[in-house]
Amino acid sequence: MKKIEELQGYLEERNFSQLFLLTDENTSKYCLPILLEKVDILTDRQAVLLEIPAGEENKTLKTAKNLINSLAESDADRNSCLLSLGGGVVCDLGGFIASVYKRGIQNINLPTTLLSMADAAIGGKTALNHSGIKNLIGTFNFKTEVFIDTDFLSTLLYPQIMDGAAEMLKTFLVFDWESAQEMMKTSDFTKINPFLIQHCAQIKENIVAQDPYDTSVRKKLNFGHTLGHAAEMFYGLSHGHSVAIGMHYAIDLSVKHANYSPQKAKEIQNFLELHYTIPDYRKDMTQLIPLMRQDKKNSNGNINFVLLD
Amino acid sequence: MKKIEELQGYLEERNFSQLFLLTDENTSKYCLPILLEKVDILTDRQAVLLEIPAGEENKTLKTAKNLINSLAESDADRNSCLLSLGGGVVCDLGGFIASVYKRGIQNINLPTTLLSMADAAIGGKTALNHSGIKNLIGTFNFKTEVFIDTDFLSTLLYPQIMDGAAEMLKTFLVFDWESAQEMMKTSDFTKINPFLIQHCAQIKENIVAQDPYDTSVRKKLNFGHTLGHAAEMFYGLSHGHSVAIGMHYAIDLSVKHANYSPQKAKEIQNFLELHYTIPDYRKDMTQLIPLMRQDKKNSNGNINFVLLD
Repeated sequence: MKKIEELQGYLEERNFSQLFLLTDENTSKYCLPILLEKVDILTDRQAVLLEIPAGEENKTLKTAKNLINSLAESDADRNSCLLSLGGGVVCDLGGFIASVYKRGIQNINLPTTLLSMADAAIGGKTALNHSGIKNLIGTFNFKTEVFIDTDFLSTLLYPQIMDGAAEMLKTFLVFDWESAQEMMKTSDFTKINPFLIQHCAQIKENIVAQDPYDTSVRKKLNFGHTLGHAAEMFYGLSHGHSVAIGMHYAIDLSVKHANYSPQKAKEIQNFLELHYTIPDYRKDMTQLIPLMRQDKKNSNGNINFVLLD
Repeated sequence: MKKIEELQGYLEERNFSQLFLLTDENTSKYCLPILLEKVDILTDRQAVLLEIPAGEENKTLKTAKNLINSLAESDADRNSCLLSLGGGVVCDLGGFIASVYKRGIQNINLPTTLLSMADAAIGGKTALNHSGIKNLIGTFNFKTEVFIDTDFLSTLLYPQIMDGAAEMLKTFLVFDWESAQEMMKTSDFTKINPFLIQHCAQIKENIVAQDPYDTSVRKKLNFGHTLGHAAEMFYGLSHGHSVAIGMHYAIDLSVKHANYSPQKAKEIQNFLELHYTIPDYRKDMTQLIPLMRQDKKNSNGNINFVLLD
């Protein structure tokens, strides 16, 4: 994880044959001007702009195919570089394209949401939704570099900030209870401490370095994601909000099956209920269970949950 | 590289949740019976058969999408295993699917052609043709295991054997002149020495281990492939045959630009002219050059050739 101030030097040093800049219609309007003001080389080298419509529904093989066609039409070679300016959708999609175009070109994530800064843009996971299943197609793209600019946070709406706060809380609940407590003291998340963001991104980076392919310790970062992904599909809520719901349930399971402190559980669930609308997911379990079965981290037919202890 | 006799034990040991077996219409007819006779576990565990039509024109994103849909419909989880029984097309496609389905399931190549045994199935490269460009989309899939069975060679037609012989000759010309000379002494390639095949596969494996991402020594294996890929598209000839044409030209360039022995050059070109139809590619250069420009190994707008010295 690097800071945006380092991007100009990074690009100058590497002398890529062409620069491509992937945005969605929102980030091209609100974030691109901020970026171009800070990173002259994108203007000087005439980075090719690729824009997709905003929204999770565009994280598809079809969009990927169109972008690959655009790269081919611009004669992008293996020494090209793709910069993805956006949240999870843009970074997931851009990272995927960069990992399969000519078997891999350099990918740079420029996360614009709190969620992607603290979590999604870090760790090399790329993804497309397919066949009604979230992230069914994807790669691990460890060539990815991430440059963080917290100035982009000013472009976000409050629910988007709360999406990121959910993933941050997740990381802290699993790896750093003290930071979790500090998070839960925050009342206005537009004023969230930037050091907490960096600390969270750093924890994620360390975990990924220990377990890049998500076979051991990295799996713990799936806390709240089993029901979370199902809730995302079923309720059509945002990823962060859905993870908040997933954590709410996983905390119950943790008390029941892993002796997690009922007092801490209450504290966390109160926080979640205060900041997120938590639907009555228990009454929807018959529909949620088949969706949970699709979860990538399942194996041999069982549904796996990460619990706190 | 392992031998087919080791496959049963390998699969028993790993206890994959499901086995998928990708074939094309030819390998399912001619090679599958040979395989099932040797590897009981595929029958016992009821491996799910996935069949595609034969031919390079099916190595597309569309076929990949259909196969991914089939895996999803069978509820394939991350602990599934895909076995690809076939030549370059089946192994390239199967390897690609295995590397992007849920960010990667185990892939096993069971090469059935001489070309794939000695070259294509080894080294983790996966590929799809797209937008009129060969192998435009692909990944490096280093989870791939390769099990060799030379019994499959009996199912091949003579031109298919000669395709493989071209890639073998390429490897030997670059890395082992003595083996190249032995190859060129062969008159009937249906009786090619199996030790030469294994030796060739071993050289490839060693080179890939030294340079998995194709940034240095592995690039030498592209000898004959610059004009080769262009010729493949332009003349519609097989890959191996096209590489033979590409080598024919690269040898001229080697004499001209890299002081390669004119005597060796003559010897190799005579062999190529004896065993392959070499079209008058020089008169087609105006059409071939733009196709060579699409080559993945180009960078910064130049066309790169591997030469012998």
